[in-house]
Parts: sequence; structure tokens; C-alpha cells
Amino acid sequence: MANVTNPLRRQQPSVVIVGGGFAGLNAAKGLAKLPVRVTVVDRRNHNIFQPLLYQVALAVLSPANIAQPIRTVLRHQRNTQVLMDEVVGIDVAGRCVALASGAGLLYDYLVLATGATHSYFGHDDWAPFAPALKTIEDAIEIRRRVLLAFELAERQMVEHGWHPPLNFVVVGGGPTGVELAGAIADIAQLYMRHDFRHIDPAKSRVILLEASQQVLGTYPRDLSAKAHHALGRLGVEVRVNTQVTGIGPGWVQTGDQRINAVVTLWAAGVQASPLGRMLGAPVDRRGCVLVDDHLNPQGLPKVFVLGDLAHLEQNGHQLPGVAQPAIQMGHHVARMIAADLAGRDRPAFRYFDKGDMATIGRMDAVAKVEWPFKAHISGFLAWITWLTIHIFFLIGFRNRLSVFAAWVWNYITFTRGARLITGDQRLPGWPDEVAPGPARAEEEAPSNPFK
Amino acid sequence: MANVTNPLRRQQPSVVIVGGGFAGLNAAKGLAKLPVRVTVVDRRNHNIFQPLLYQVALAVLSPANIAQPIRTVLRHQRNTQVLMDEVVGIDVAGRCVALASGAGLLYDYLVLATGATHSYFGHDDWAPFAPALKTIEDAIEIRRRVLLAFELAERQMVEHGWHPPLNFVVVGGGPTGVELAGAIADIAQLYMRHDFRHIDPAKSRVILLEASQQVLGTYPRDLSAKAHHALGRLGVEVRVNTQVTGIGPGWVQTGDQRINAVVTLWAAGVQASPLGRMLGAPVDRRGCVLVDDHLNPQGLPKVFVLGDLAHLEQNGHQLPGVAQPAIQMGHHVARMIAADLAGRDRPAFRYFDKGDMATIGRMDAVAKVEWPFKAHISGFLAWITWLTIHIFFLIGFRNRLSVFAAWVWNYITFTRGARLITGDQRLPGWPDEVAPGPARAEEEAPSNPFK
Repeated sequence: MANVTNPLRRQQPSVVIVGGGFAGLNAAKGLAKLPVRVTVVDRRNHNIFQPLLYQVALAVLSPANIAQPIRTVLRHQRNTQVLMDEVVGIDVAGRCVALASGAGLLYDYLVLATGATHSYFGHDDWAPFAPALKTIEDAIEIRRRVLLAFELAERQMVEHGWHPPLNFVVVGGGPTGVELAGAIADIAQLYMRHDFRHIDPAKSRVILLEASQQVLGTYPRDLSAKAHHALGRLGVEVRVNTQVTGIGPGWVQTGDQRINAVVTLWAAGVQASPLGRMLGAPVDRRGCVLVDDHLNPQGLPKVFVLGDLAHLEQNGHQLPGVAQPAIQMGHHVARMIAADLAGRDRPAFRYFDKGDMATIGRMDAVAKVEWPFKAHISGFLAWITWLTIHIFFLIGFRNRLSVFAAWVWNYITFTRGARLITGDQRLPGWPDEVAPGPARAEEEAPSNPFK
Repeated sequence: MANVTNPLRRQQPSVVIVGGGFAGLNAAKGLAKLPVRVTVVDRRNHNIFQPLLYQVALAVLSPANIAQPIRTVLRHQRNTQVLMDEVVGIDVAGRCVALASGAGLLYDYLVLATGATHSYFGHDDWAPFAPALKTIEDAIEIRRRVLLAFELAERQMVEHGWHPPLNFVVVGGGPTGVELAGAIADIAQLYMRHDFRHIDPAKSRVILLEASQQVLGTYPRDLSAKAHHALGRLGVEVRVNTQVTGIGPGWVQTGDQRINAVVTLWAAGVQASPLGRMLGAPVDRRGCVLVDDHLNPQGLPKVFVLGDLAHLEQNGHQLPGVAQPAIQMGHHVARMIAADLAGRDRPAFRYFDKGDMATIGRMDAVAKVEWPFKAHISGFLAWITWLTIHIFFLIGFRNRLSVFAAWVWNYITFTRGARLITGDQRLPGWPDEVAPGPARAEEEAPSNPFK
């Protein structure tokens, strides 16, 4: 690596960053002024602000409100190129990543930040009946299903005089599950009040299933209990110690009980991106790469693994798979590469825990604050804090404005701005699906509207 | 129909409106205070502001910016119900429409406003290679293709050192074709200037093909010539008198010339919704129902056909398939039903032509003004007029605000807010597709970024 410190910079070292999420993008930004050539590879053209993805799923925000083209974020960073492609292989000996489109990319430093995806614990056959929330497409699909359930119920009432119970089941009581359940309860009870003539959306049931003994299991016990209580106030039925044993079209099985569900959402398991295993370094049960304080996998000092893909323990705890560790790791990688270039020792990574928070519906949240003071807060104050922080950390001033405007509108007028159903107009397991089609028009007596 | 004027209103007449576009929605609104039961049937849950759909396709606006749930628009209109369903048959003798989900809806008045869709003139096999613009899904697909073309070109440059010429072909020089072509030229030349390292988006070619001898054929000749000239200034190659004879993956055939095209868009033909033919009344060549001054098809006084589905000639001209006639027809139907209920004669429909306009790129437009004064205007002034009118007519105050904000941001910062690629990441005919996959990683020498 003689060329690394070559003062002529004729051949600057190549840093390949795989993954344009919080970790990868912050690593790229940190490298802006260094004498390196940066390549950010992502199979998507956009970075999304994951903490607000559930609001896209529940029609509060538009996809574009929380997304930004990676290319645009880095447009003025002249040492950086962005490649929309997928990494399908890593050759650590040859320092090369193989791309789906056929080519290979040589690197001097590899930054792997491809995150995690959902896991159905080996039951991938549940996926069509219980979508999870990781991408914009996922959010649009969840939005489609939730909104469609109400439309189909109204239609069924008009045409056949009955509708299946509007049960929404959320599997998994972590932050995503809690936020989804709270938001569904909100939209059903508050935002659709005047929209239907034959069904009462407020009579929907939202059922949150959690296998462990408490929701928000990674939070302190008092906050977890407050969240449980707050969900109850919103009308969400929280069932802890409840293991899901089967999911099919229109139902969820828990032990010997079968719950009818017009929409089931999956917020239970995550697993690491498959790229982690390609390094040949030790990984944990979920495929996360074990890294040291320099974010290096065992024996690979030129490879950094960060964000949700990294398994790093500090103070006896594994760092959680949320935005803060990913952002800090991204910054830190840039600092370590700068140290290399300057011939200094790399600084060790220390996670600076500012806290963690989750919203529960319209006006409630729980927050474990670690900085600038330590506190457990909940209720309206926690919610305002959540609001402020999330607006502040949104990428791009335009998104900050548009999200702020959408929220003000949403909270004041009880109108959701993005109530769009696109794509297919059927729900798996919906009773209509069994015998659909125009053939029945003749069989049945025509019904009168408003009967 | 004795019950129509029943003072006790025990059995109010049922008005079934099929289609929640400009015509249908305005008809529904006009009936708000009348003693009728209104049912709006649409297979979509949302109404879209069609004149701005091309801005969704070119990533200026988000889908939700120009869409609103039909149900929400009519939420406080207590005599109206909304049904998300598809009409698959009409029994004019039995006064009943058959729904795809199996039931039938009885009507006393039927308002048919299902509009038009695109037509490939019998060449439906062209559709996969040349999407048209009618729905939100269409707009998202066009956005995907246009944005993806630039991403794939950049990738191909990095990995293989060349890329196919970035030719965008728009077929059809009507208002939609002109607006699409201008907007593509804009995004390529202005909005992506700093985003790529290996390709120059400004070197893209935008080719507009028009079979007749002029673009904007329905406009006065001087405006059509000005539009042609303005397109040229934007760098759009306008080819009139050019008949498309074939479209395939990556190419468009015109006579004996084959044009390579990374993206082809179809803005050439429209045909009426198939519902028009189900009435059994006379239709024109495109399936539009011939209606009289009361918007009735021949012999069907209880059926009204409006909007793009109607063929109505006044002053020797067929009314154009744009928003204004549809809106006015919608209002008029409500007035005619009110007249029926009051036992008065129905007023005849007279189209009040306020004019017509089309934008050409960022700062230019042509407008034929008929009211409040007669004029042909073009250039910046026409563009400002266009802007004002379109903001003013957007449904919903929230959309007015959000569109205005998006435009200000877009025009000042040269950043498009909705540059999202979702869904599939391939383009039909893209050369990479022929031999893709990781297998080639070994065959080819790994390339260096920034080489």
C-alpha cells in the first residue's frame, strides 16, 4: 500500500462502500475531503429515512418525503461516484467485489454496510400473507393492504350486507411493531371517521402479538410497561407471551387459537444481509459480522463492517440495529481511513448512546434519554421530542419542510395526505376472492344502494 | 318514475355515477343538496389531477400531490356513498349496472364518466416497450424507466467503458407528448447536471415523433409553430409527418429508419372506455358515445355520458378530451337532474370554452385564451398563467400547498423532489440484459473505478 500516502496522489486509494443507508452514506460524506476515490454501490437509487418508513405505510407521508437519491446527496462531492448495482460476491484476497451486472470493482478499503432484512424464521411461505417493512415498496404494499381492507369491507357491506371483521394483526412488539399498531389504530379511529357510510372503521381491532413477555423488549421495563399501557388506550390489543405458529391467507395461528386477520403485518425478525457471510469472517446467529473496536472483521484490517450488518458489543451489550450506531460508525470509518492516510493509529470506536425512542399513535411516545441528561420520558413530551429529533435528522432541507408540512396538516385536519391504493386490488384471504367475477352478477338479485 | 318527485322522499331516486374523474366527481358534488341517493363507483380509490400527471412521471411531484381519495373529497356529503369496484356490464332495460365483485346496482339515473385510455392502434404488443400515461401506476413506471436509463448508462460506463446512446423517444405530439418531451429535456439538461461522473445527461437526445404535419394539432397554427420552435430550443428533435410502424425493446421503427431508444413513451392514441359500447347506443370510431345537448345517448334519457367518454359536437367541433368540458358536463348533469326533480325542463349543455394550454419545459408554454379575452399567448407569460391556473384548480388546499412548495423548490434549486426508482431494475432492450449475472465477473478483468 505504498501508494496510500503517495504525495502526488497519482493513484489515490479506492474506497468501495456497499450500501447507501445511514452507515454507508455517512462514511461517504466523511471521506469527501480525503485523497481517496470513493465508490458507493447500492442496488437502489435512493437512501431512505428508515425511522419514518412506517408513516409511509400508513399514508401520512409520501415515499419521496423520506427518500433522496444517493447521487443527489453526494452530487457535489467530486471524489465520489455512485453506482446503482448489486454486489454479489466479495474476493477479500483479490480485493475485489463482483457486481450483478458482470463487472468487478477493485478496492483498497471495503466498507460493508448493507444492513439487515426481515426474517420469517425459516417460514418464508408466510411472506405473501404478512408483508414486512424495510423498503419503499414494502411500505406501499402495506399501505395498499390496510387501505384496501376498509374499501373492500364497505363494498361487501353494500353488496352483500356483511363484511369480515376488520382485524389487523401485527406480529412482533419491537419499535416497528408498536409504531405500526399505533398508527393503524389511529387511522381507523380518527382519520376515516367520516369517510364510510356502511362500516365503522373505529370498530376495527388491532392486535399486536409479541412472543416475549413485554413489548419494546430492548427498552427499560418502566417504558415498556408505559408503551403497553399507551397501546391499550389506543384500543390496540396487546398479547405478550404469544408465539405465532402459522400465517395463511386471512388468518394467524397462535398455539391452538386462530385469529382472523384481514391484514397481517410482520415486524418480528431480522436477519443480516447475505453479504456478511461472504467475507469468510465469523458471524453471529443472524449473519451479522463480528467486528472489533475498529469495525474490522477478524483478520481483515482493510474491510469495515458497519450499521445493522455489524455485531459489536460494548459495555456488555450488543449495539442495537437503529440509526444512531450506524451514523456514528459511518463517521468513524472516515476518521480511521484519514488516520491511515496520515500514518497515525486508528482511533477505536466508542458508541455514544444518546438514547432511543418509539412513538405510539398520534400524541404519545416513550423515550429513553441518555444525553444530554438521563431520563425516561413518555407521553406528549416524549412525542414532541420524537417529532423534533426526527425532523432535525431528516436528510435534506426539502424533506424537512415537506414532512413538517404533512405532519401539521395531518394532525390538525385529521386527513392523511397519501391515501393512495396502487397496484393489485385484492387481499389474500379476502372472502370475495373465492368466487369473484362478473358471472355472479346474474345469479344475485341486484342490491339497492343505501339499503 | 312516480317516486322521483315524491315529497315524502321515502324512496329517493338513486343516481349511480361510474367514474370518479373530473366529470364524475363534479356531477357528484353538484348533487350534494338534492333529494337523491348518489353512488360513485370507481375501480380506483383516488381521483387524480390528470393535467399534472406528467410531472409525476418526471419526478417533479409525488403521486399523492395530485391525488385525493374520492371518499375523502365526498366525506361530508351525506347523501353520497363511494364504492371501489369495477362496472362490468350495463342493463339499460333493467336499469342496473353489474359490478366485478358480483353484485348489481339499481339506478334511476346513470352517469357514465369512465373516460378514455390509451390505444396502440391495434398494436398492443408495443405496450411493454412504450408505456403510456393515464394512471398513477403509469406515471411511476415512466419515472422508473427514465431515471433508470441514466443509472444504467452510468453503470455501463464504469463497468464496460461505453453506454448505448441516451435516446428518449416520445410518440405523439399532442399536449401530453409535448409536455413529456419538454420535461425529459429539462431533467436531462438541468436537473442532473452534477449527479453523474461518467456520463453527461445533457447529451441525451429527446425525439418527438408526430404523424401529422404539426405538433399540438388541435391548437391554432401560430401556437403550434411556437410550440415546435420552443421544443427545438430545449433540444427536443421534433419530427413531424413521421409515422411509427413498429416498436420493440430498445427501438422505434419509422418507415425504413430504426431509431435506437433507451426509453420510448406512448402519447399517440386514445380510445374510449369499453363501457360506452355497453349502452347499445351509437358510438364513434374510438368508442365514444354520441350524445345530444342533454348529454344523453340516443333514446336513453335517464343515462348521461360525459367527459372523455362522450362525443359531443358544438359549433361544428367535437369537444376536446380535456378537463374543462368534463368539469362543465359534471356540473350540468347535476343541474339537469335538479330540473327533473323540480318538474322543469332540462337546460341544454353549452360548452363555455375558456381556452387551452400546454407547457413546454421549465419556463415556456403556449395558451389559447378564449376567456376573459381572446388571445394567443406563449413564452414565460403563458407559463405563469399555466402555473396559476393549475394551482388554482387542484383539488384540495393541501395539494395546492404541497404542489406549490414542490414547484418553488424544483425551479429554484434544480432538484427534483421525487427521484425514486421503485420496482424492477431492468429496461426492456437494455444491452446488459442479454448476458447478465455474476458469471461474467470472472470472465472480465475487474475494472477500476474512475478509470
